[in-house]
Amino acid sequence: MDFKQNYIDEIINDRESGASELARRCLEMCADIIWKLQTDGVSEMKNEIEEFVHALQNARPSMSPIKNLLQTWLENLKSLPTFTLQEFRLEAMGTAEDLIERSKMAVDQAADSMFKILKPNSRIMTYSYSSTVMALMNLCKKSGMRVVVPEGRPLFEGRKFGKRISDLGIETTVITESQIGICIKNVDVVVVGADTVVNDGSVVNKAGTSLLALAAQTENVPVYVVYEKFKKSNQTSAEVVLEKMPEDELGVDTGKNLHIYNYYFDITPAERITAWITEDGVRLNKGKKFSK
Amino acid sequence: MDFKQNYIDEIINDRESGASELARRCLEMCADIIWKLQTDGVSEMKNEIEEFVHALQNARPSMSPIKNLLQTWLENLKSLPTFTLQEFRLEAMGTAEDLIERSKMAVDQAADSMFKILKPNSRIMTYSYSSTVMALMNLCKKSGMRVVVPEGRPLFEGRKFGKRISDLGIETTVITESQIGICIKNVDVVVVGADTVVNDGSVVNKAGTSLLALAAQTENVPVYVVYEKFKKSNQTSAEVVLEKMPEDELGVDTGKNLHIYNYYFDITPAERITAWITEDGVRLNKGKKFSK
Repeated sequence: MDFKQNYIDEIINDRESGASELARRCLEMCADIIWKLQTDGVSEMKNEIEEFVHALQNARPSMSPIKNLLQTWLENLKSLPTFTLQEFRLEAMGTAEDLIERSKMAVDQAADSMFKILKPNSRIMTYSYSSTVMALMNLCKKSGMRVVVPEGRPLFEGRKFGKRISDLGIETTVITESQIGICIKNVDVVVVGADTVVNDGSVVNKAGTSLLALAAQTENVPVYVVYEKFKKSNQTSAEVVLEKMPEDELGVDTGKNLHIYNYYFDITPAERITAWITEDGVRLNKGKKFSK
Repeated sequence: MDFKQNYIDEIINDRESGASELARRCLEMCADIIWKLQTDGVSEMKNEIEEFVHALQNARPSMSPIKNLLQTWLENLKSLPTFTLQEFRLEAMGTAEDLIERSKMAVDQAADSMFKILKPNSRIMTYSYSSTVMALMNLCKKSGMRVVVPEGRPLFEGRKFGKRISDLGIETTVITESQIGICIKNVDVVVVGADTVVNDGSVVNKAGTSLLALAAQTENVPVYVVYEKFKKSNQTSAEVVLEKMPEDELGVDTGKNLHIYNYYFDITPAERITAWITEDGVRLNKGKKFSK
C-alpha cells in the first residue's frame, strides 16, 4: 500500500533527525497506519502491522531506537487479549503514545543528568545533530557555556544545529571537520549523542565521531555520550551495519577510476569514552581519568 | 606599484597550489618585476626588490619554501659585484631560473625516494593537494597503487586532486574528512606533502593532517611526509603562524552568537610521523616501528 511505502521512504530519506526523533516518528506512523488499515479482524491487523514494523526496523539499521521502540510496542500489541478491532486500535494507539512520551522523558532526563556534571562556562564540542544534545543545550543557555560544532559533511546538519544552538543565546562556533584537531585543544569537554550503543559501550554515531573522540583522548578532553536507553543494543561492534548513503550527496562526479564513499556512521570504541549518561544517570568508564 | 600588488594578491589568494609551486611562482614574479621596474641604478633596484621579496614572504606565513627560496635568491643578489643595471637584471633572472630548476629537481628526487620505499599495490591515503605527492603519483601509475583522498573542505582541493590522480589511471576514492577514521583501517600507508617542516620535524600542512596522522598512528599505519628541503624551517612549532582564511569560504552565515573558524593549517607533531623523505633520501623516526 502506498501510504506504508511513503512512510518507510520518509524514514530512509530523513538524514536530519536524530535517532530518537526518528524512532518516535515511526511510532506515530504505526499509530496512524492502524487507523488507515482496513482488515477483517484483529489477527490480520496484527500481521499487517508486524510486517510494517519490520520494514521500518530495517529502514535504518544503524539506529537502534527504531528497532527497540518499535519492538517494545509490537510485543505489547501481541500480548493484548482478544479485543474487537476498534478496541485493539485504541489500545495500540495509546501504547504508542505512552512509549513516545516515555522516550521524550528519557531524553530529557538524560540531558538533565549530563547538565548536572558540566561545569559552568564550559567550552563544549559536539558533533552532528542530536535531539538529546539539543535538550541539553536548552538547559545550558543561561550557564555561560560555549559550543563548537563541526559542519557535518555531506549534508551540513552540524551547521543547522549550530544555528539552532546560537538562537538559544549560546556562543557557537562552526568549523570544518578538518579543524577538529586544532579546536579540540581549546574545549573542556566533548558531548555527543548516539545512534546506537552496542554491548561493550562502543558508540555508533555520525561518521567522524570516532575521530573526534580520538583527538579528545589525545588532548585529555573527556568524552561524554548522552542518550536514552532505547539506544542500547545487544549487538557487538562487528555486528553493526554501518549505513552507506548515496554517493551523489558529496557533490563529486565519479568517473573512470574515480570512486566515492559515503559512510554515514562510525563506531567509537568504548575506551575513548569517559562516561555514558542516560536517564538512569552517569556511568563512568573505570579505565579513564577525569583530567579536565 | 599596481603590478607588484597584483602579484602579492595572487599569492595571498591562491588556495590551490602547493607551497613549492607557489614558491617557484614567487621567483618567476621576481624575475618579471626586475624587468618591469625602472630605477636609476642597481642599488635602488636592490632596495625595491628586497621590499617586494619581503612582501611576498609575508603573504603566506605558513609556507616556508616561499620564505626560503626567495631568501636564497635575495642573498645571492646582494652578494653580486657592482654590475650595470642590465647585467644585474640578467644575473638575477638567471639565478631565479636556476633556483626554480633546483626546486623542481628536489621535488622529483623526493618523490622518487618515496616511491622506492612503497610496496607495489599499496593502498595510499593522502591529504589536500601537494605537487610533490602529484610527482609521486606520476611514478605510481603502473604499480597497482590505489589512493584515498579526503575532499578537502572548504575549497575541495582534495576532490580536484583525486580527479587528477584518477586521470593517471590510478584507482582513486574521494571521501569526506569525517570518514578518515573508517577508511584509515583499509589503507597501508599515509603519504602527505608539507607546507613547512619545523625544527623538531613537526609538519605544518593543510588543517586535518594532524588528525589523519593521529588516526594512522592509532591503526599502526605508517605516515610518510615527502618534501623538498626548502620546506625546512628553523622555527619551533610554537612560532609557526597558522594562517586563518576568510570565514565566508565555509558558506555558512554568521549571526548573533554564531561564529566561524577557518584555520587552513595545522601542525602534526613529529611523534606521529614514521619517516621524512626529501631529495636527500629517507630519514626514519627512530621512536617508531614500521608495522605495515
